Amino acid sequence: MTHLSRYIPILDWGRRYDRATLANDLTAAVIVTVMLIPQSLAYAMLAGLPAEAGIYASIVPIILYAIFGSSRALAVGPVAVVSLLTASAIGKIAAQGTADYATAALTLAFLSGGFLVLMGLLRLGFLANFLSHPVIAGFITASGLLIAASQLKHILGIDAQGHTLPEMAVSLWAGLAQTNGVTALLGSLTLLFLFWVRGRLRPLLVRIGLSAGAAEFGAKAGPALGVVATTLAVWGLGLADAGVRVVGEVPRSLPPLTMPGFEVDLLRALIGPAILISVIGFVESVSVAQTLAAKRRQRLNPDQELVGLGAANLGAAFTGGFPVTGGFSRSVVNFDAGAETPAAGIFTAIGLALAALALTPLVYYLPNATLAATIIVAVLSLVDLSIFTRTWRYARSDFSAVAITALLTLGLGVEVGVAAGVGTSVLLHLFKTSRPHVAEVGLVPGTQHFRNIHRHEVLTDPRIVTLRVDESLYFANARTLEDLIQTRVAEGTELRHVVLMFSAVNAVDFSALESLEAINHRLRDMGVGLHLSEVKGPVMDRLSATELLHELNGRVYLSQYEAWEDLSQR
Amino acid sequence: MTHLSRYIPILDWGRRYDRATLANDLTAAVIVTVMLIPQSLAYAMLAGLPAEAGIYASIVPIILYAIFGSSRALAVGPVAVVSLLTASAIGKIAAQGTADYATAALTLAFLSGGFLVLMGLLRLGFLANFLSHPVIAGFITASGLLIAASQLKHILGIDAQGHTLPEMAVSLWAGLAQTNGVTALLGSLTLLFLFWVRGRLRPLLVRIGLSAGAAEFGAKAGPALGVVATTLAVWGLGLADAGVRVVGEVPRSLPPLTMPGFEVDLLRALIGPAILISVIGFVESVSVAQTLAAKRRQRLNPDQELVGLGAANLGAAFTGGFPVTGGFSRSVVNFDAGAETPAAGIFTAIGLALAALALTPLVYYLPNATLAATIIVAVLSLVDLSIFTRTWRYARSDFSAVAITALLTLGLGVEVGVAAGVGTSVLLHLFKTSRPHVAEVGLVPGTQHFRNIHRHEVLTDPRIVTLRVDESLYFANARTLEDLIQTRVAEGTELRHVVLMFSAVNAVDFSALESLEAINHRLRDMGVGLHLSEVKGPVMDRLSATELLHELNGRVYLSQYEAWEDLSQR
Repeated sequence: MTHLSRYIPILDWGRRYDRATLANDLTAAVIVTVMLIPQSLAYAMLAGLPAEAGIYASIVPIILYAIFGSSRALAVGPVAVVSLLTASAIGKIAAQGTADYATAALTLAFLSGGFLVLMGLLRLGFLANFLSHPVIAGFITASGLLIAASQLKHILGIDAQGHTLPEMAVSLWAGLAQTNGVTALLGSLTLLFLFWVRGRLRPLLVRIGLSAGAAEFGAKAGPALGVVATTLAVWGLGLADAGVRVVGEVPRSLPPLTMPGFEVDLLRALIGPAILISVIGFVESVSVAQTLAAKRRQRLNPDQELVGLGAANLGAAFTGGFPVTGGFSRSVVNFDAGAETPAAGIFTAIGLALAALALTPLVYYLPNATLAATIIVAVLSLVDLSIFTRTWRYARSDFSAVAITALLTLGLGVEVGVAAGVGTSVLLHLFKTSRPHVAEVGLVPGTQHFRNIHRHEVLTDPRIVTLRVDESLYFANARTLEDLIQTRVAEGTELRHVVLMFSAVNAVDFSALESLEAINHRLRDMGVGLHLSEVKGPVMDRLSATELLHELNGRVYLSQYEAWEDLSQR
Repeated sequence: MTHLSRYIPILDWGRRYDRATLANDLTAAVIVTVMLIPQSLAYAMLAGLPAEAGIYASIVPIILYAIFGSSRALAVGPVAVVSLLTASAIGKIAAQGTADYATAALTLAFLSGGFLVLMGLLRLGFLANFLSHPVIAGFITASGLLIAASQLKHILGIDAQGHTLPEMAVSLWAGLAQTNGVTALLGSLTLLFLFWVRGRLRPLLVRIGLSAGAAEFGAKAGPALGVVATTLAVWGLGLADAGVRVVGEVPRSLPPLTMPGFEVDLLRALIGPAILISVIGFVESVSVAQTLAAKRRQRLNPDQELVGLGAANLGAAFTGGFPVTGGFSRSVVNFDAGAETPAAGIFTAIGLALAALALTPLVYYLPNATLAATIIVAVLSLVDLSIFTRTWRYARSDFSAVAITALLTLGLGVEVGVAAGVGTSVLLHLFKTSRPHVAEVGLVPGTQHFRNIHRHEVLTDPRIVTLRVDESLYFANARTLEDLIQTRVAEGTELRHVVLMFSAVNAVDFSALESLEAINHRLRDMGVGLHLSEVKGPVMDRLSATELLHELNGRVYLSQYEAWEDLSQR
């Protein structure tokens, strides 16, 4: 039982479920459901799919995550960035509104789910670590801007397309003359209202005497109020006839059973984007889940998270959805509203299922402009321009990674942006370690310590040069060391001994071994000895099995002081 | 003058040139010229170009390298691996024997030369370090096998093609029935003779009383003897009429002035291969030059080498050649024959120019099979299968890099092989550093030292956990540390303080900084303090400028002992 419950966490928390927990979970579920209905519709629109796909993507995936996921409070469903990635990936393959488009979304969810489950079963969650924080921050910020820009067309009531900022700008500019005045007015007012709700409603509610909790709930319900008000306005004033585009007919139905497309060409075209969506979604989700888990001193298992998110996406693939992941704001709301177990997610799913069965006619007159305003307000909170100044102040290399990721995401699209960002991070890291700090050291008088000859008053001997290498030796810096020694040795004509002090060398790879062998041969040809000192145990184990130590034109000393004592007396 | 001579080394050694040096350089030049004539023809054939291209590629490039290069003994010209890469790159664009093919070879040399000069002027020579030794070894070994396989068709006198081992095998098998008996006999005998020369001739010459030097010279001249003998045989016995393919008409001319093609499509198709050829050629050349320089305690400037090799390739591009680099065997011969300055190279070029003017009619009846045999014997010395066992014994990760590079080079071609090898090396390195060694340490009784609690009898306190991180913190391992601390903290209910001992942390990048901030927030939410100890100066400088130290839910201690003293008494 304990073994199985490691892989199916519901078996663990489910056994201890009691009435108090039930009450907490139910309350949280009601609040999250109210919040999720407009969000689901909005993110479906962002992904270029019919409104119901958003609702379906929030039902079965939540339940599957509740069974397999390891976070207690994570709320899974369509989120902004993943919806953008979905639209970008499928937009290249099929036209919005076609059956092919919807099928491709299912396939994308299927591939993404399969990939996540596979990564989880193979315990490869750590691979996500290669997305550095600057790359993620630059990407999320740029995505927020891209998403906001992509929604302007709905606010203005025009047609426009494009997956990069320049494309969108050109397309919006060309369509500007077709702006629908009524839509633009409605959209702008909604946008203003939502920004006001976000910034001012809670303090106002507190000031008029509501408790902090009630005020918080009121603020969260604000967007729902906007949805209701604009829907009523469109219905009451007959604005749909004035050209205001609305959500329209949404089938009253539980999630249907659907089948992803499995054509080879489709799979080949979507596997790259699916991997990208999986990794980005996973990283976003895990960082939210980890923050929430820490607040209750709980433990999150990243590999189990992969399985949970993978199951959710597989669920989305077979029930009319599209790629999903753990959302930031909804998870925080869920947590703050008191959700204690994933059962809250199951109740949310039931709430949404009821909504799908009963409430869909009510959204007929919901204007697209309102959904677009909801999205814009939500995603602008993702935009964090301070990352540019913070990384600039901290280290130029980190700033470069942020800047390259953000600019290329905006200018050339999400895939190029992320790929370039990861490449930049890796290259900058290799670049830094490829020029290791190597200090020439001498003996501090009266001690057994050796310090940098350029920073301290130390004893040296023209016949001996001691170099302290402050980095593990591997292929990217091995040859730098060769050059350095060659240069140093060509300078000193009296030189008889080179000592490499290995106190900070944690590893020596095969390239570095061959470089050491080359250094040894060259020094021998010059009649100069090569010695090593303070070699760590694991490094010594490796080196002992090689020819280097047998052919070494010198000795291996336990301590640098011992080397100095021995060599300076020869 | 001194400043200019840094960039044009000939100004340096040219001023001090005397008669003794002249005599040594002239002797070396004669020996190298005799060796280079058949090699040049052979490598032109390997590159798919007419025989004269090989001679032209050995004249102006050698002179330009003598002016700009920094090695005293390096002999530049067509070499096996670069010729293979040339054939592979151009073979995709044009058919052998066409004018387009020859023009593409010029363009490739031009791009490669331009890239090398640019790298040299920007002092980017260190970038070549990202080719690890295992990748180079795997690539060179696989290339040697590929080249040998590609020459079998000439030995058998059949037509075959392909740039990978499977392609060649299929093509050879299909053509086997067309084997030309006379060619096969001649080719096999030459091959046997050359192997015999290589292995047995020198000891034999020594035994019959020649001096070591004369025996060495005789052994090196052996291939030339094979060339003369088979050419005479074909001429005397009229074997060309029996279907033995020969070099044929080679124009008697100095290198012509030629113009590379500059069409955008051509440049775009060749820029990738040009970069690959530059880097591989540079790495090969520099390692030879460095070995030779060390023998005379001379200094090699890698960036100047880039300029020298770049100039040589630009020269090849405008004088009917193809990509060149410093060759291993000819440089060693040049060095052993006593060459003291690059003037030896200039004399070699003059010798080859005379050959191009006067001797080309003599190679009319030289059989292609002989050239193929010369190539096979030369490249099989590149094949070093011991690299597999040596890396296997040393470290599995290095073995993987060798194996992947070699197998993919053989199976999918040279470009894929090198790219996959570099990718594998980088990923394996990141993988190793992404799981840093983190030891939980305790106080060794009676000392101020802290050691691993699992290896030593040490004092611990259930309220304090001290983790020593044995790696610089950066994006690939930052989150691993987060997980590790989360796990450790969730275990210990009495835990009040976490101390991170930074004695082996040489750097902290922005991702790691954000991870430390996240760890700090999470521990604060749990009511656990986070402390740092033994933070190095440069790391402390960076951290001091951030919010982390101000928000730190604990203290920074100079030494770990100080941290222990303070925290265990709280």
